[in-house]
Amino acid sequence: MILEIATISIAPGNMADFEAAYREARKVITSATGCGAVSLQRSIESPGRYVLQVEWPSVAHHMEGFRNSPLFQEWRRLLGPYFAAAPVVEHHELVAAT
Amino acid sequence: MILEIATISIAPGNMADFEAAYREARKVITSATGCGAVSLQRSIESPGRYVLQVEWPSVAHHMEGFRNSPLFQEWRRLLGPYFAAAPVVEHHELVAAT
Repeated sequence: MILEIATISIAPGNMADFEAAYREARKVITSATGCGAVSLQRSIESPGRYVLQVEWPSVAHHMEGFRNSPLFQEWRRLLGPYFAAAPVVEHHELVAAT
Repeated sequence: MILEIATISIAPGNMADFEAAYREARKVITSATGCGAVSLQRSIESPGRYVLQVEWPSVAHHMEGFRNSPLFQEWRRLLGPYFAAAPVVEHHELVAAT
């Protein structure tokens, strides 16, 4: 399993609308093949900065499976209007967890 | 509960030593008052980039309780020699999780 961590920037005035849209969008991404646990965190220190984390079986499940699926179009349709910049996405392997 | 997310940069040649040191350091941080789940993730795309995540009851548990404790001195003693730059730390509130 790998962990996608995406940093998302939202104009502070759009935060409530973005979070409302996310409540719909999460149903879309969790329908994707292989999608595991998903969380969205809101920065306390930096208004408008969010961290999305998604577990996938592999990078390909995210970057090929999800990104090339109609679900990704729907995900971007719901959330894209609120992005103040392109999300910054990296994938990670677990070193250790308690 | 809040989530600390720290981005840590390690010189690629020091990654194995850093990960070995972390196996000791995790015992230190999990001894801190209020420390919840802890994980360390290794970036797949950016060698030497790690993401540490720690659950705390409040920002103060991290920034005042842990940072002012002898445990933090021990934590930094173990890991600090491997930091290629100061870790970038933010705290987050959960918006939604599956």
